[in-house]
Amino acid sequence: MFGSCESSLSDDDVKGDLKLSYLPFIVNGRQVGIIPPIMMEALSVSQPDLFEFKNNEVHLSPSLTTYAERTARVGEFIAKCRQSGNFITLQGWRNENYAVSRSYYDTPLFEMERSATCLFGVKQYGVHVNGYYKHPIDGICMWIGKRSSTKQTYPGKLDQIAAGGLPAGMSIKECMMKESEEEASIPRNISSKAVSVGAISYFTEDERGLFPETQFIYDLELPADFEPTVKDGEVSQFCSWPLSKVKEEIATDRFKPNCSLICLDFLIRHGYITHDEEPHYLDFLSSIHQTHF
Amino acid sequence: MFGSCESSLSDDDVKGDLKLSYLPFIVNGRQVGIIPPIMMEALSVSQPDLFEFKNNEVHLSPSLTTYAERTARVGEFIAKCRQSGNFITLQGWRNENYAVSRSYYDTPLFEMERSATCLFGVKQYGVHVNGYYKHPIDGICMWIGKRSSTKQTYPGKLDQIAAGGLPAGMSIKECMMKESEEEASIPRNISSKAVSVGAISYFTEDERGLFPETQFIYDLELPADFEPTVKDGEVSQFCSWPLSKVKEEIATDRFKPNCSLICLDFLIRHGYITHDEEPHYLDFLSSIHQTHF
Repeated sequence: MFGSCESSLSDDDVKGDLKLSYLPFIVNGRQVGIIPPIMMEALSVSQPDLFEFKNNEVHLSPSLTTYAERTARVGEFIAKCRQSGNFITLQGWRNENYAVSRSYYDTPLFEMERSATCLFGVKQYGVHVNGYYKHPIDGICMWIGKRSSTKQTYPGKLDQIAAGGLPAGMSIKECMMKESEEEASIPRNISSKAVSVGAISYFTEDERGLFPETQFIYDLELPADFEPTVKDGEVSQFCSWPLSKVKEEIATDRFKPNCSLICLDFLIRHGYITHDEEPHYLDFLSSIHQTHF
Repeated sequence: MFGSCESSLSDDDVKGDLKLSYLPFIVNGRQVGIIPPIMMEALSVSQPDLFEFKNNEVHLSPSLTTYAERTARVGEFIAKCRQSGNFITLQGWRNENYAVSRSYYDTPLFEMERSATCLFGVKQYGVHVNGYYKHPIDGICMWIGKRSSTKQTYPGKLDQIAAGGLPAGMSIKECMMKESEEEASIPRNISSKAVSVGAISYFTEDERGLFPETQFIYDLELPADFEPTVKDGEVSQFCSWPLSKVKEEIATDRFKPNCSLICLDFLIRHGYITHDEEPHYLDFLSSIHQTHF
């Protein structure tokens, strides 16, 4: 696939079950991802010694000992993958690097282009803001954003008032305030009052790759007369719904899937989906608190 | 161990690795528990045909087809276990039956004495109430109960304002209001306003057996001038602490362990333990949202 590059795998490995395998991705002795089947061929014919297969794991070569070396060499590999045209996800190139580590709180081992993380099953982290206000008659109403029809992912789907992926090196709170300002024109003197209320973790797979994701969550009670407005074009419009309407809509496909889960968590925490009434209550809680690896 | 009872296991089974094994406990084709090693010998010499070993699982005999039959036969077996004096947990006999099912929302298959559930690794469910009020200077303050020194379990340890196990057939909300009234003298017109805010699930083992537990959680904002008072003697006294103090104390052994986890969940949901400051944040969330089986 990549011209004259030699394989670092034996023929037996490649011809065997690897094309159906999900193998741990190990860097510097730590698992930082899961390699999906769609990556096996590309890895097997990559630059010699960049990836090594041993013990049913894929290891980034231990000869790469620094953050900069790993970032550069894996970056070159991903650029070749992009040129090959074989990977849907790389058609949505972001020009935004994500930190790669065992978990959010571990020291990052290198950086990787955001759109490539799903090819290595690298954990992704983001932040979502539940923007709401208290209506004298309707009770809690939640601001919902409609994603722009030109967004690379999930165009036109419903979303939180503000949300975004965590770029390498940015604190979660700073990311929350930045996204609130850029997407919904929420000034920092308001967004700084948002309350950190937890995180959800889930694992999905689609034609692009693997997505072990964690979203850190803030609840932001807004003044009843505040209206979010479109700013950077990521959102096309905002509307506010009572929670009964939010509860109905998250069961449809109108929401971006992970935004449904954020709403589900909100509805559970605020007593709008309850133990006694919802037979899937514990399944819901399990599904939003998965352990990745 | 149980007199002349014949074994329903082969000698090979008993002499092999079973004494170190944790085997799924299956009733009517559904896993309802995990049998800990301390139960293997008793099961192996139980009444013929009450328990069957197959496929590395322990099955309650399929000849018992009704709720009543299963409850009666397993009850007789547990009574013999109690007479043997070999099981610490049965010294704390409760005379309170718990429902046994695949999960809380599945149809119960039979009932079992509460103190015996850990010998079968049967899931236990309870309800905990976070009783709090807003202090003009100290912010949110939480009411903490000190367990009576005569409680069978965790005497003298700190606890929520009210909590209790879910008896068979009682709704979660009813259990919450009953415990609030009995333990802390909270009238129903106040406890009925408690907000269902989620559940935590965890798995522990001690010398008594296995505890796959789920606690349903309510937050109850109390009037600032309300003081809980001791009623049924389960609690010896109440005090109220600002959340900064609660945060310090849950890291000590003064709290009953699962009550620490309930406080941890509260502190996370209310923004007193945050993403940016706590390096174990995601580990904490995983530890209180475990999947049992």
